[in-house]
Amino acid sequence: MSAPLPTSDFRLPTPRTYAILGTGALGGFYGARLQQAGCEVHFLLRSDYEQVQQHGLVVESIDGDFTLPQVKAYRTVQEMPTCDVVVVALKTTQNHLLPELLPPIVKPTGVVLVLQNGWGIETQVAELVGSDRVMGGLCFLCSNKVGPGHIRHLDYGQITLADYAADYAPCGITDRLKQIASDFEQAGIAIELAEDLLIARWKKLMWNIPFNGLSVVLNATTDAMMAHPQTRSLAKSLMQEVQAGCTACARFLSGSDRSISSDFIDTMLDYTAKMKPYRTSMKIDYDAGQPLEVEAIVGNPLRMAQQAGLELPQMTMLYQQLTFLAAQQSS
Amino acid sequence: MSAPLPTSDFRLPTPRTYAILGTGALGGFYGARLQQAGCEVHFLLRSDYEQVQQHGLVVESIDGDFTLPQVKAYRTVQEMPTCDVVVVALKTTQNHLLPELLPPIVKPTGVVLVLQNGWGIETQVAELVGSDRVMGGLCFLCSNKVGPGHIRHLDYGQITLADYAADYAPCGITDRLKQIASDFEQAGIAIELAEDLLIARWKKLMWNIPFNGLSVVLNATTDAMMAHPQTRSLAKSLMQEVQAGCTACARFLSGSDRSISSDFIDTMLDYTAKMKPYRTSMKIDYDAGQPLEVEAIVGNPLRMAQQAGLELPQMTMLYQQLTFLAAQQSS
Repeated sequence: MSAPLPTSDFRLPTPRTYAILGTGALGGFYGARLQQAGCEVHFLLRSDYEQVQQHGLVVESIDGDFTLPQVKAYRTVQEMPTCDVVVVALKTTQNHLLPELLPPIVKPTGVVLVLQNGWGIETQVAELVGSDRVMGGLCFLCSNKVGPGHIRHLDYGQITLADYAADYAPCGITDRLKQIASDFEQAGIAIELAEDLLIARWKKLMWNIPFNGLSVVLNATTDAMMAHPQTRSLAKSLMQEVQAGCTACARFLSGSDRSISSDFIDTMLDYTAKMKPYRTSMKIDYDAGQPLEVEAIVGNPLRMAQQAGLELPQMTMLYQQLTFLAAQQSS
Repeated sequence: MSAPLPTSDFRLPTPRTYAILGTGALGGFYGARLQQAGCEVHFLLRSDYEQVQQHGLVVESIDGDFTLPQVKAYRTVQEMPTCDVVVVALKTTQNHLLPELLPPIVKPTGVVLVLQNGWGIETQVAELVGSDRVMGGLCFLCSNKVGPGHIRHLDYGQITLADYAADYAPCGITDRLKQIASDFEQAGIAIELAEDLLIARWKKLMWNIPFNGLSVVLNATTDAMMAHPQTRSLAKSLMQEVQAGCTACARFLSGSDRSISSDFIDTMLDYTAKMKPYRTSMKIDYDAGQPLEVEAIVGNPLRMAQQAGLELPQMTMLYQQLTFLAAQQSS
């Protein structure tokens, strides 16, 4: 491994222009909020283009409903202007499109903000735009698309933002991170800034791997899994594998000792036990016959750990079960 | 651990009388065959008692259909005579009844033949009747009960018989084992004699744990699981855990090195890939809303391995998933 590059500390211009790739439950929600707060936002759409071009976006939200009758909607990136911040809000199952979507629309001094779940997407994006033009965000958002251009925001909405440098070296809190945070905060979105994207990503995986994965395999909501001692125990031991994977990954990529404390595992378990019954996003996709984000959420972290020399038997088993179920679904 | 007792080499009388505990798809089939071949057989029944008492047993079989218009049917063990061979053919989920069922009907020189799946049942039976009065059988039988007193035999039927001694010490081929084998062979049942019940049991577990377990968790038949490389790989690694469990168990119980070769794993995988699509017995129970034999087939071997100091993470995960699904089913 080469030593990580220092992350760029360039500042973004003021005001900043935004592009939203993937105007669905997540990208549509955050993009609409940014536009509502006065930002210039450009939306890439596919199936909903006609509707949104003509009638704009409708957001029903626990924080208050609103409509944007006019939005800048596009069918292709070739029609879009270059932007300061390009938000990747596609499903990761669409990420094979990124080489064609990203380069045309990121300004030379712009950044790509990856708001997807999973591991390793920032590295893929860095190969397209350079490792000093990527950052990551972890969204804690409960929203659905209920119709074309029609989003229902049910709960939460907070984003943890962290800057990226090659090999996920910790970047600290950069100026451009604060700039983007201020735009989202203007739009009423709670923001937490994190100094270490690697840790932030694995913390999110620590919830997503057991609960997204098991919810599909066991056809269950979070409350049922937490209520049974055997599945609660299984969730905990999967979390411990994620914890070990994180430590091994940090050591492999940067030679540094960075890890998630065991207290965090207990906190997440208690938090999940107290949550309202929750159908995970992977379960929603599975029930709808949509592609599952198995590779980003389970496959990539698993392969990262293996590359670092660590076998994770239960995560491996979960991955094998999920790829089987995904194949059965599409066959 | 105490040194294992030498197994009793007492011979059984000729002719031998049989009791069948559990006159279902398995007990009904073998019992009917034994009676058809001239043995005196006593059947314990519960829900089918009236029907069988009045009309006997009907067996449709790939080896030829037959009816036994009159059988010795009983509703309680108190009405039954003591027998030379008491065949345990209940579902293991009924094994809490054994302390009440077995002692009244085993002759002082008789034996209990356990024809169930799973691990450790012989030890439980030994606590009731003495470790010199137990033997085990592994049935390779495909049959269903299609109505009261009505059994459909679809395929196979072979039994591997092995004698039991305390702590599953290897017994070799005892005289009484040959005597019982000759009765079954007279009845047209193929018999293989095994010298080591511990190895025979774990060999059967090597198939039953992955395929029964995963068929329920993944809602799949054997052919689908073998066709997908990830589930085939998962089945193999579960088999390797069973193999390790067997070795640890043998060393723990008797201090001896006994194990299943890795060739056997590949043979079983090839055999399963070539089988006709097969819905496992646990899947059939699950689909019918019946109790699952999770404790006998997965829980007991897992606890045995843990007692021997071995953690088996994937078998643990399978056990946790199955106990969750069983609980959801009955809730």
